[in-house]
Amino acid sequence: MASSSYSTFAINKGSFSPKVINCNKELMFNCSSCKNPFPLYTDFTKSRLLISNEKSKKWKQIQQLSLRSPIQCQALEIENTPSFTIGKKFNLDDVIEAQQFDRDILNAIFEVAREMEKIEKNSPGSQILKGYLMATLFYEPSTRTRLSFESAMKRLGGEVLTTENAREFSSAAKGETLEDTIRTVEGYSDIIVMRHFESGAARRAAATAGIPIINAGDGPGQHPTQALLDVYTIEREIGKLDGIKVGLVGDLANGRTVRSLAYLLAKYQNVKIYFVSPDVVKMKDDIKDYLTSRGVEWEESADLMEVASKCDVVYQTRIQRERFGERVDLYEEARGKYIVDQDVLQVMPKHAVVMHPLPRLDEITVEVDSDPRAAYFRQAKNGLYIRMALLKLLLVGW
Amino acid sequence: MASSSYSTFAINKGSFSPKVINCNKELMFNCSSCKNPFPLYTDFTKSRLLISNEKSKKWKQIQQLSLRSPIQCQALEIENTPSFTIGKKFNLDDVIEAQQFDRDILNAIFEVAREMEKIEKNSPGSQILKGYLMATLFYEPSTRTRLSFESAMKRLGGEVLTTENAREFSSAAKGETLEDTIRTVEGYSDIIVMRHFESGAARRAAATAGIPIINAGDGPGQHPTQALLDVYTIEREIGKLDGIKVGLVGDLANGRTVRSLAYLLAKYQNVKIYFVSPDVVKMKDDIKDYLTSRGVEWEESADLMEVASKCDVVYQTRIQRERFGERVDLYEEARGKYIVDQDVLQVMPKHAVVMHPLPRLDEITVEVDSDPRAAYFRQAKNGLYIRMALLKLLLVGW
Amino acid sequence: MASSSYSTFAINKGSFSPKVINCNKELMFNCSSCKNPFPLYTDFTKSRLLISNEKSKKWKQIQQLSLRSPIQCQALEIENTPSFTIGKKFNLDDVIEAQQFDRDILNAIFEVAREMEKIEKNSPGSQILKGYLMATLFYEPSTRTRLSFESAMKRLGGEVLTTENAREFSSAAKGETLEDTIRTVEGYSDIIVMRHFESGAARRAAATAGIPIINAGDGPGQHPTQALLDVYTIEREIGKLDGIKVGLVGDLANGRTVRSLAYLLAKYQNVKIYFVSPDVVKMKDDIKDYLTSRGVEWEESADLMEVASKCDVVYQTRIQRERFGERVDLYEEARGKYIVDQDVLQVMPKHAVVMHPLPRLDEITVEVDSDPRAAYFRQAKNGLYIRMALLKLLLVGW
Repeated sequence: MASSSYSTFAINKGSFSPKVINCNKELMFNCSSCKNPFPLYTDFTKSRLLISNEKSKKWKQIQQLSLRSPIQCQALEIENTPSFTIGKKFNLDDVIEAQQFDRDILNAIFEVAREMEKIEKNSPGSQILKGYLMATLFYEPSTRTRLSFESAMKRLGGEVLTTENAREFSSAAKGETLEDTIRTVEGYSDIIVMRHFESGAARRAAATAGIPIINAGDGPGQHPTQALLDVYTIEREIGKLDGIKVGLVGDLANGRTVRSLAYLLAKYQNVKIYFVSPDVVKMKDDIKDYLTSRGVEWEESADLMEVASKCDVVYQTRIQRERFGERVDLYEEARGKYIVDQDVLQVMPKHAVVMHPLPRLDEITVEVDSDPRAAYFRQAKNGLYIRMALLKLLLVGW
Repeated sequence: MASSSYSTFAINKGSFSPKVINCNKELMFNCSSCKNPFPLYTDFTKSRLLISNEKSKKWKQIQQLSLRSPIQCQALEIENTPSFTIGKKFNLDDVIEAQQFDRDILNAIFEVAREMEKIEKNSPGSQILKGYLMATLFYEPSTRTRLSFESAMKRLGGEVLTTENAREFSSAAKGETLEDTIRTVEGYSDIIVMRHFESGAARRAAATAGIPIINAGDGPGQHPTQALLDVYTIEREIGKLDGIKVGLVGDLANGRTVRSLAYLLAKYQNVKIYFVSPDVVKMKDDIKDYLTSRGVEWEESADLMEVASKCDVVYQTRIQRERFGERVDLYEEARGKYIVDQDVLQVMPKHAVVMHPLPRLDEITVEVDSDPRAAYFRQAKNGLYIRMALLKLLLVGW
Repeated sequence: MASSSYSTFAINKGSFSPKVINCNKELMFNCSSCKNPFPLYTDFTKSRLLISNEKSKKWKQIQQLSLRSPIQCQALEIENTPSFTIGKKFNLDDVIEAQQFDRDILNAIFEVAREMEKIEKNSPGSQILKGYLMATLFYEPSTRTRLSFESAMKRLGGEVLTTENAREFSSAAKGETLEDTIRTVEGYSDIIVMRHFESGAARRAAATAGIPIINAGDGPGQHPTQALLDVYTIEREIGKLDGIKVGLVGDLANGRTVRSLAYLLAKYQNVKIYFVSPDVVKMKDDIKDYLTSRGVEWEESADLMEVASKCDVVYQTRIQRERFGERVDLYEEARGKYIVDQDVLQVMPKHAVVMHPLPRLDEITVEVDSDPRAAYFRQAKNGLYIRMALLKLLLVGW
């Protein structure tokens, strides 16, 4: 942190621009109108210019400073050039939705996830994230997802603050806003993994927070890390993503998992998707239209056996009883219609795999578990690697 | 831990006194009536003489030994002189209530908190408390306070055992005493942070425990770390405590925060306090009488604008609906009466700040957040530094 | 991890046997029918032959591989000989029930527990289990037991994933099996400590898991670590187990603690057991018959004073109100019948001790606490050492 040189420039109200501060350095400011000298950090890993008086990795959007008058600043430049180069690697500030990832960034994340597999297998614990603190802010319990994130953080030497009780933040106060909660928690941690019951909550949190936010599911909205681990699993199991044939089976209307997966598969070449579902829970038109617009071949089928015989991946999902309300008869009918069992395995290619986001009930029979093509527990494990990769990327970069 | 010399002395039933063991050393005892030789540690950082057969930092009050007969002991002195000197620094065994702190000890704690700011900002994690284990024993949930303490402990390299479910201790047993619970938990940890629903619970715990207790709020009683962080924030923001003018606004009858703050401010010179509150939640006479007895100037005012124009600190608090019972009309009237908004900011001095213990509802409007004088999120962050300082002081000393 | 030599052998469907792979090494496989080369690890610390494609310490039972056709494998032997020798020390895969321990293994565990006492007392934190991750999977809350295990893990430098909310695993899915949950959680951790409401759940988990399982209580079934710490405490306090006289007092019908203790005491020589209980909660015949079959002397008594005057250990237990249903009168009568108080202490030998599994209500009066013979809080602390020992043994071996 040795000082090397000084430079002087003005930060005017509302006039920040990348041209004003275009070096890749940490700057120590002495402001004429500030109570104390304070450091400002610029962050060129973000597309927007960011500035902060917090420690490295905690960024405020410049807009939040709301300077009321021009500040004349003298900057003490500190030799501490980050190792990345702008444009060489992808920007990753937050993980909010599957749509934010393109093919290149997916490949780059998967490359890091492969490294994470090695770290987890070879050593009794890495220290890449030693000293970093992750807050798991869960407004509804999801033990499976929470443990996966917390394991990922701890496997990399990081620490965790955990709450499954995040609703208490607002209930105790009878109305604290999510934004206020985020501003408080970001003071205690370096990254927030958030589960919320409202669609869009993660985006609101990211807009407020100066530290990275990972969406661990927001209501009927997004669950992007699940989507990433699904695509990663296909690549790990099948060895490729271009040219694959995928059968999506079960509740395609309500499952955000299969919807996100279909969306991400559209980024690859020559993919063919089969939809196999009871009539009441068919894939909705928005995804079908999207696939068509991207030139992805798809078809609906009522014949699981035929689809299974042609696919690289049979992606089974659970029929969610809670979606059927009083219509237990419809639920029971839908539930029993497409079961992956020994008969399905018989017709599946040797190289194909069965996937499932878990938990499963009886839509995959237990006898399937012992078949090497049963990939769903490996898939759950891949969630660990994807989350390790994302935590590493968001906290210490590529 | 090399041994250096022996000394022999008697520990008689009920006759322990500082004169008997007046060295600043660890002592290894061979007792004639003890099953095994065991180490006894004396602790001169405590005003009472303490003795323990536990590892350093776990002290039993000598009274608990209840020796039934005189024990002739031979002490193996161990060269391990602590770095502190008796009388040079303040004793800090437990943190139970705001009243335990005088001006000198407040200053000393704030000095350590300033060091903590540097630690948190400059390094990816300190190791000062590596190997220490803090138990957060919460009999009622308070996620905000719990995360702040747990972050403080982990930022210093310590570890945490956590329960928000501490009522289960007694409910499962249908009546285990707090004392029994404390005796169990002190066997698992080095320090206990306790939140309880009963006033006085923290004091009872401290009387039982051989390890330090921090009161993280006991019912309508005390919440001393909040009081400390409030005073610390004023000093950090305004630069001084003597001679300041503070407006306490909102629910002054029920808020333990403002009551403790008023109490602590009385320790400083030439402080002026303004009370601004709806009639139904006015500051109670005990605090007013106390301030008067200490020569602190105070006055009540119904004019927030006028007070705000004169104060260094406007300390806003939430009107607590639960205090009004069925009288929703009174609540609504009280709640809307004094709001900190842009108009208040207009009249406030440039150097002044707005504080709030959080959570806030609409008693401070969101537009205030972007003003540099909005200090409430920095105030929350200062809670981290104060708690880091207290954990350090209680576990490893000055 | 340097490679040293190759050897080739066949793994045939269902034909694995210790003869096939009888070296004590890690093996890297290139399988003709496998997608990728993968390492297999053999584990000779387990009585059954195990094989895994996971990192060391995560074993799959060979049966789970369900090879559909013979695999011709080429093994790359890796120089990494573990330090243990087969047969020299005891195998310890899981901790499921008290019955799995014989006298020799109890002694060996106690020896390690003694080492753990030294570690906990002398150092600010051991790093024996650094990098290891323990999941506490509690299907019902038991804060006392959970904190004891988590403290044990952290005192040895290990990390913890915690859930008191494990029922959510199955409730969210409205029916996920325990087996599926275990397969998911074992992907996130190195050892699982499980509390469950169903007898036999721990055994089912161990049959599924490739990592060690510790039963932290499964319903009315087993709570083996409590049984171990009880026996350990007797040895620590009395100095021996052969020839001791133990009075078991209180609810002997429902307390799994006293039942397990009686079972384990039968492994020692010349033990005499006294049963002192209200008629409605007398010790059941199965244990009495077992003791008789093992040649252990026992008798029932209604005179606590007489028993106390003869015993080395008075083991008091709580009368569990919930067992009496509507019969509050019977409960109240049973509850007040045998109280350990000053009068009991008067007749007890000087060297004897009072034990209790905690929590206690008033079956031991508070005045007893200050007597050196009150061993129950030391007993709780011994639970820490026993759990440290078990975690060490299961994760890194003897």
